[in-house]
Amino acid sequence: MTGLPTTHRRLVSTVTTDGQVRLSLQNVPLPTPGDDEVVVRVEASPINPSDLGVLLALTEGTAFERDGDAAVARLSPPVQRALSARAGIDLPVGNEGAGVVVAAGASDAAQALLGKTVALAGGGFYAQYRKAPAAACMIVPDGTSAEEGASSYVNPLTALGMVGTLKREGYKGLVHTAAASNLGQMLVKLCAADGIPLVNIVRSDAQAQLLRDLGAEHVVDMTADDFMPKLIEAIAATQAFLAFDAVGGGKLAGQILAAMEQAALRTQKVDGPYGSRQMKQVYVYGGLSTAPTEFNRGFGMRWRMGGWLLTYFLEDIGAAEAKALRARVAAELKTTFASKYTKRITLEDMLDAEIIAAFGKRATGEKYLVLPQR
Amino acid sequence: MTGLPTTHRRLVSTVTTDGQVRLSLQNVPLPTPGDDEVVVRVEASPINPSDLGVLLALTEGTAFERDGDAAVARLSPPVQRALSARAGIDLPVGNEGAGVVVAAGASDAAQALLGKTVALAGGGFYAQYRKAPAAACMIVPDGTSAEEGASSYVNPLTALGMVGTLKREGYKGLVHTAAASNLGQMLVKLCAADGIPLVNIVRSDAQAQLLRDLGAEHVVDMTADDFMPKLIEAIAATQAFLAFDAVGGGKLAGQILAAMEQAALRTQKVDGPYGSRQMKQVYVYGGLSTAPTEFNRGFGMRWRMGGWLLTYFLEDIGAAEAKALRARVAAELKTTFASKYTKRITLEDMLDAEIIAAFGKRATGEKYLVLPQR
Repeated sequence: MTGLPTTHRRLVSTVTTDGQVRLSLQNVPLPTPGDDEVVVRVEASPINPSDLGVLLALTEGTAFERDGDAAVARLSPPVQRALSARAGIDLPVGNEGAGVVVAAGASDAAQALLGKTVALAGGGFYAQYRKAPAAACMIVPDGTSAEEGASSYVNPLTALGMVGTLKREGYKGLVHTAAASNLGQMLVKLCAADGIPLVNIVRSDAQAQLLRDLGAEHVVDMTADDFMPKLIEAIAATQAFLAFDAVGGGKLAGQILAAMEQAALRTQKVDGPYGSRQMKQVYVYGGLSTAPTEFNRGFGMRWRMGGWLLTYFLEDIGAAEAKALRARVAAELKTTFASKYTKRITLEDMLDAEIIAAFGKRATGEKYLVLPQR
Repeated sequence: MTGLPTTHRRLVSTVTTDGQVRLSLQNVPLPTPGDDEVVVRVEASPINPSDLGVLLALTEGTAFERDGDAAVARLSPPVQRALSARAGIDLPVGNEGAGVVVAAGASDAAQALLGKTVALAGGGFYAQYRKAPAAACMIVPDGTSAEEGASSYVNPLTALGMVGTLKREGYKGLVHTAAASNLGQMLVKLCAADGIPLVNIVRSDAQAQLLRDLGAEHVVDMTADDFMPKLIEAIAATQAFLAFDAVGGGKLAGQILAAMEQAALRTQKVDGPYGSRQMKQVYVYGGLSTAPTEFNRGFGMRWRMGGWLLTYFLEDIGAAEAKALRARVAAELKTTFASKYTKRITLEDMLDAEIIAAFGKRATGEKYLVLPQR
């Protein structure tokens, strides 16, 4: 480990016992790899919506202010209750990243990674160094930079997980919300490649145009007056009775179920007074809106709403299938699974109230990349 | 068919193409049984909450007024859309009932039922006569009246369906709302008999006392100030992560999921920032409240809310298992599965605006029995 520092900096998010969330940088010893482990110098790590829930402790980015070396915000009582399991624990944050292997354990697998640029996930990537099992590292293909590999886990595997869930549960088409996101753009490319009908729900004309330019066939603008009839039409055409909703709060998830029911009534035989027999499922996989979820139940008796988490999906399919998905990501990192970043920031920047407010907005089309070595 | 009338009266509910729901009595020919069929003179048929959705077309009972020989109410535009499949169709109503077999087809099975008092389900029991397959008839045990057999399908099988769903999905305990209803009282007795922990959610002290008098161990009053802590405590004690909710609207379903999450965090190991790993399920099987369903999503990523319908459950378990459940109901009709009625009404009474308003209230503890021969 010659030439390496003895300590490094990492960001932690702490829910305090007096009801605050506190973001701070800690100086911690450089980790030492075990036989089958490596130490990665983290070059780049994205801020995904899935990081923000943990980082900001379910609190608006605008609620933070500077307090000495830290950024702090007060938690509402319901959030305090919901996050009581976190109280008093310094949580490292950052689900994924990429960097260079600078130290390796004695095993062949670990030694083979020395000097290589790798991409990986598992938490704690808003840090300068990260210890990891050699088996968790994916070597990025030649000619691919750490920045290009930084988002090779969460979004690509989530897109593949949506398509995998569709296949496992026997649906024919997908509905996706906040569809102009980086993830949404990947999904458009992936569904086109795999021949899966996709209904994209976006929030503006500009977003609709962006997806159409990528080749999306069904794009519905939820801010338009004719949102519901257009959504029903698109679902009737695609038989997309499985939705993945990144928004969570508000009426959207219920509107999707209602549109699915109308599409089912329009295209299928109905044999009783309880609505269609078509199972209709919305998975809420994100929380872009922290408002309450609200819906009328005018969609028959065969409907489901529920949570979806990539970790649980990968556990469900097993290690071999998960590995095959990662190999596909590596092969298509510059095409199907390419990410675009609009801002690059340092670890210190992450304690800046104004910057927290900016990335906390979760604005579609704005994507932040953290560069911990700067 | 000597001595039988040539026509009889039945009640129908009609969603008109101009946006009303209309309840009326029709004179229709007495049905003629096929070889494997019988004709039942309907003596008694209950008004279940599950009948009201169809009968009143998702509309408040207080909205009805008399219009000549009919009772009518105007539908809201969302209800009109949701029920568009019903428009212009005269729907017979009344899911279940009991009576005497007065005519039978040529088959042995049908002939064997002649003169017997039978209980059955399938719709259209708010009528003086009902044709049915011989195989659908359950002969009520000796010494049991038609009134006592009238509710032997919907509530008993729903209670058994809840316990069956618990077993099929691998849960250890149940939460039930509107738990002081006829169905809820059955469930208390059934769960006690089968050794299944049950958390009963009620809306008053009097209801809590009623269930405790039946032997219920866990009873939580949702109108009390300490509702949430008591609910969390009861779920932690019973590990009841499956709920059946008869209410549907408002915040209750979400409160149950939130209490389940808190109970899981309190009693199980937590290994990540996404909440408990415990799957938490609420099935909405009724709509006592027609308000929107509303919830915050502070219950981790493993949760589900969805519709539940007895018909679909019985299809899922198959004919043999369903038959075994019906045999159990017959054997326990005067004990576990006994029903109490507070009002007895005629078919004409069902067109009276005041009476519609009364049974439309779905007041727990008030149960109406229709006597079509009066």
